[in-house]
Amino acid sequence: MTNPAPAVLQWLSSNKDRGTRFLQRLVQEGSIRGKESQAQALIIEKCRKLGLSLDIWEIGDEVLFKHPAYCSDRKDFSGNPNVVGVLKGTGGGKSLILNGHIDVVPQGNMEDWEDDPFSGKVKDGRLYGRGSTDMKGGSVALLYALEGIISSGVKLKGDVIFQSVIEEESGGAGTLAAVIRGYRADGAIIPEPTNMKLFPKQQGSMWFRITVKGRSAHGGTRYEGINAIEKAVLVIHKLQDLEKRRNEKMVDPLFKDIPIPIPINIGKLQSGEWPSSVPDQAVIEGRIGVAPSEEMKQAEKELMDCLEELTADDDWFKLHPPQVEWFGGRWQPGSLEKDHPLMNTLSENYEKMVGEKPKIEASPWGTDGGILTNVGSTPVVVFGPGVTEVAHDADEYIELGEMFRAAEILALTILDWCGVDTKAEGE
Amino acid sequence: MTNPAPAVLQWLSSNKDRGTRFLQRLVQEGSIRGKESQAQALIIEKCRKLGLSLDIWEIGDEVLFKHPAYCSDRKDFSGNPNVVGVLKGTGGGKSLILNGHIDVVPQGNMEDWEDDPFSGKVKDGRLYGRGSTDMKGGSVALLYALEGIISSGVKLKGDVIFQSVIEEESGGAGTLAAVIRGYRADGAIIPEPTNMKLFPKQQGSMWFRITVKGRSAHGGTRYEGINAIEKAVLVIHKLQDLEKRRNEKMVDPLFKDIPIPIPINIGKLQSGEWPSSVPDQAVIEGRIGVAPSEEMKQAEKELMDCLEELTADDDWFKLHPPQVEWFGGRWQPGSLEKDHPLMNTLSENYEKMVGEKPKIEASPWGTDGGILTNVGSTPVVVFGPGVTEVAHDADEYIELGEMFRAAEILALTILDWCGVDTKAEGE
Repeated sequence: MTNPAPAVLQWLSSNKDRGTRFLQRLVQEGSIRGKESQAQALIIEKCRKLGLSLDIWEIGDEVLFKHPAYCSDRKDFSGNPNVVGVLKGTGGGKSLILNGHIDVVPQGNMEDWEDDPFSGKVKDGRLYGRGSTDMKGGSVALLYALEGIISSGVKLKGDVIFQSVIEEESGGAGTLAAVIRGYRADGAIIPEPTNMKLFPKQQGSMWFRITVKGRSAHGGTRYEGINAIEKAVLVIHKLQDLEKRRNEKMVDPLFKDIPIPIPINIGKLQSGEWPSSVPDQAVIEGRIGVAPSEEMKQAEKELMDCLEELTADDDWFKLHPPQVEWFGGRWQPGSLEKDHPLMNTLSENYEKMVGEKPKIEASPWGTDGGILTNVGSTPVVVFGPGVTEVAHDADEYIELGEMFRAAEILALTILDWCGVDTKAEGE
Repeated sequence: MTNPAPAVLQWLSSNKDRGTRFLQRLVQEGSIRGKESQAQALIIEKCRKLGLSLDIWEIGDEVLFKHPAYCSDRKDFSGNPNVVGVLKGTGGGKSLILNGHIDVVPQGNMEDWEDDPFSGKVKDGRLYGRGSTDMKGGSVALLYALEGIISSGVKLKGDVIFQSVIEEESGGAGTLAAVIRGYRADGAIIPEPTNMKLFPKQQGSMWFRITVKGRSAHGGTRYEGINAIEKAVLVIHKLQDLEKRRNEKMVDPLFKDIPIPIPINIGKLQSGEWPSSVPDQAVIEGRIGVAPSEEMKQAEKELMDCLEELTADDDWFKLHPPQVEWFGGRWQPGSLEKDHPLMNTLSENYEKMVGEKPKIEASPWGTDGGILTNVGSTPVVVFGPGVTEVAHDADEYIELGEMFRAAEILALTILDWCGVDTKAEGE
């Protein structure tokens, strides 16, 4: 068998029930933050059956905590490990990281769900439940592709490093820990829900909190106070200007169809305690998008500079400048050349299976790809089944057909990228 | 004794310790909402000693609840009565209501106070504690003036109706209940802290809550959503326009030194739950000032109309118009002619004691005067010791000298307004 692809595709076509059942079990172990262990146990069991070399460890040592890219408010990682399973190649091929996160966002309001949020129910070709799209469907596609290759007796030349990490939804400490542990490769694929588009570039983002001071007064003599809400509106307008200026610089054709490539989102505004008092403080929280090729520090600086401009123009702000905190989430941007060999391999196999060229875009959100690229020097493409729109919503689901189609494309890409050892194969 | 004034003033001058001690005890019984009974007990004791006819009753019957001016979220009034003490005149004089509220606002943050908020501590001529200025100092001035008159053996022709009511800080249900019970008079004085200015007119006010809808989206694709904070800013700008238009109509010379006679205050804005989500709802709370001569309904209508204008101009609002609720506090405005006989009497006696004409202004806040005037058809002047600035703040205090000066002016005004029965006096 010089070309193992037909046999692998045949296996993938014949064992879909197995893939569906595995996803179902994985969704049913609702792995919200701090409760990832049961879902990881299923991953470990699967890796063991596939014969991968397992590396299971609790993250959270001093090296991680002191790393400049570390971002987490979690105090306790015990009992909820990172899992890496390595399929060692026979040598002479390129290595590939296959990265998926096991953590899911909370289910939100139970009443918004038609079924139990962790039902794993299958209906009309869709599998329902929190995490089905983001991104257990993607992780199952990875493992199912690997299972197809291994079950077909194929031996790869390059190493495949499958990673099931925690903490992606909260700043990427799991992937960062894996990079620090030494996992790097010639390429990486992260099957986040891209709706089967290829994302060589990803928007990064950071959260900010801006505290704006006012001066309290009775509402009946409001002219004796300074209304913090009115001052916060000035800050918002200034941030809108900044967003406009930053996006005018985004000339990469990948963004040509995106109205605002790197948005600044005003997500929260809290001010005041009493209808008839002038509020003396307003707190704005939001996120600033970071361009794929931009340093996080640069985006930080531009926001700080624009607030300094505002302060210089306003007598009240001169005395009480808005205070900025960078808190909570930080997602590194990622950027890969559009014609990188990994992009080409993935595109060719997409075309082979789908019959047309894939859509290539930039993602509007950060992934762990930013850490793999910027810290781990590993080229990353984000590509996977499922649509973002349902990802953090009630009644989250994944189209199973798409998940299996992704697995086929991933399997062919693994074969091409890592290379097949035709000698070993026959043994 | 044809002119009893010198004797009354002599008594008032000689018994200040008694007045101070009474205020001290009254402040020490911190009568926040729902806990007015102990302070009312002291008032009752004082009225009894003065020989007033007492009327003590728990408010809260169906007539009150169904009255159009009723405004309260309090469910239980039991155990915390209204108190009225009447000094019946011998006949032929004008009657006078002396109205003070016993309820005080909460102490706020304990750590902001130098002493216990209910210490009643006297230092450098000031008596400290929650309610000292707003308005137990005023009520003590009333009772001390009455005590001076009664102790000097003076008999008045007209009735004096002293009222110690609950609920002023929460919408005026106490005074409304007294009006419904039948208490009306030819004039009324309310010694709220006006800093010894005469307020023939008072600004009324109402609270509003405006709920603005948006559409949620991920912050990275914020252009797919509608940011409720941005839409709320449009509402705020529209309210600012309305405030401007309403105040341009305020040509009464009483307001000539007031930058914004009837302000619209944006007191609170709450929106969003997550920095990187587009918020789908914003809630604005505020208060709209009501002009002294304006109907509450008119102010309501102008606010509703301005939001309808906004809705007509905005495609999103056409589908999702801002929702208005009128909730919580409502304070009726009050208005008396500047040359009303009660104004003249009070002014003359002020000039007599202080040596210059009083300042006459319009109050920037509502008082129970609005209810006395609009529901009880009783002409009201608001005049009292203490300054608004410290009223709801930590370390609230009253200048005792000012309280006693107010008592003198009030005593002389009672004598003039009600008239002295020189025949009965000698008996």
